[in-house]
Amino acid sequence: MSCSLDVYGDKWSLLIIRDLMFGNKCTYNDFLKSEEGIATNILASRLKGLEENGIIEKLAHPDSKAKKLYRLTPKGIDLLPILMEVYIWADKYFTMPADLKAIIKEAKKDKDKFVKQFTKEMKNQMTRKNSSS
Amino acid sequence: MSCSLDVYGDKWSLLIIRDLMFGNKCTYNDFLKSEEGIATNILASRLKGLEENGIIEKLAHPDSKAKKLYRLTPKGIDLLPILMEVYIWADKYFTMPADLKAIIKEAKKDKDKFVKQFTKEMKNQMTRKNSSS
Repeated sequence: MSCSLDVYGDKWSLLIIRDLMFGNKCTYNDFLKSEEGIATNILASRLKGLEENGIIEKLAHPDSKAKKLYRLTPKGIDLLPILMEVYIWADKYFTMPADLKAIIKEAKKDKDKFVKQFTKEMKNQMTRKNSSS
Repeated sequence: MSCSLDVYGDKWSLLIIRDLMFGNKCTYNDFLKSEEGIATNILASRLKGLEENGIIEKLAHPDSKAKKLYRLTPKGIDLLPILMEVYIWADKYFTMPADLKAIIKEAKKDKDKFVKQFTKEMKNQMTRKNSSS
């Protein structure tokens, strides 16, 4: 478990993974703009760590040579059940926005189904991006 | 989610929660002896943070006035599904000890059942400790 926590077990890494999974964010600037206000040096080091550990991968940006696209690998997508449980716990002890509450309610109804559908969607997105590049 | 990660979202806090949940550990010295080798200042600060956030509570030790007993609160016990998913993910990507593999296999078969049974056991332990003190 300790090895596994070295891979993604800090707040900032988990927030980057959340942004990639649910936030439709995929560039350095996208992550920088997240409301938690991550510092540039922390963002750079966490992206590097997540890439080295095979959780995310860096691709060329179709619009600009200076930009990079980040996306979750299958190993990163497999973190979904952990994030789902983090949200379910948070929903019990914190006030959550209504739109998020609705998704969490849906997930709680049938967790396996939620994970399967969401994973399938993310993997399909990967295939589409691959074939369009 | 960010608030929730501030509560337990760092490696060391999660390892303390793991020790309390699965490791049968409950004193400062127990946590200090964990194989990951937590530093005394980090251990003290994480215990304080977890207590302030209502994840753990500190009780008098029956054997010694100088010692304290730590245990998970119901809010802390509710983190079990997150830890279970952390282990299931780790089991997919890392080599795990055989005894742990067996428990993970059991959990994967019926996650809801595993969480319910384990939570019930932990809450029973709380009641026994309360009534014996």
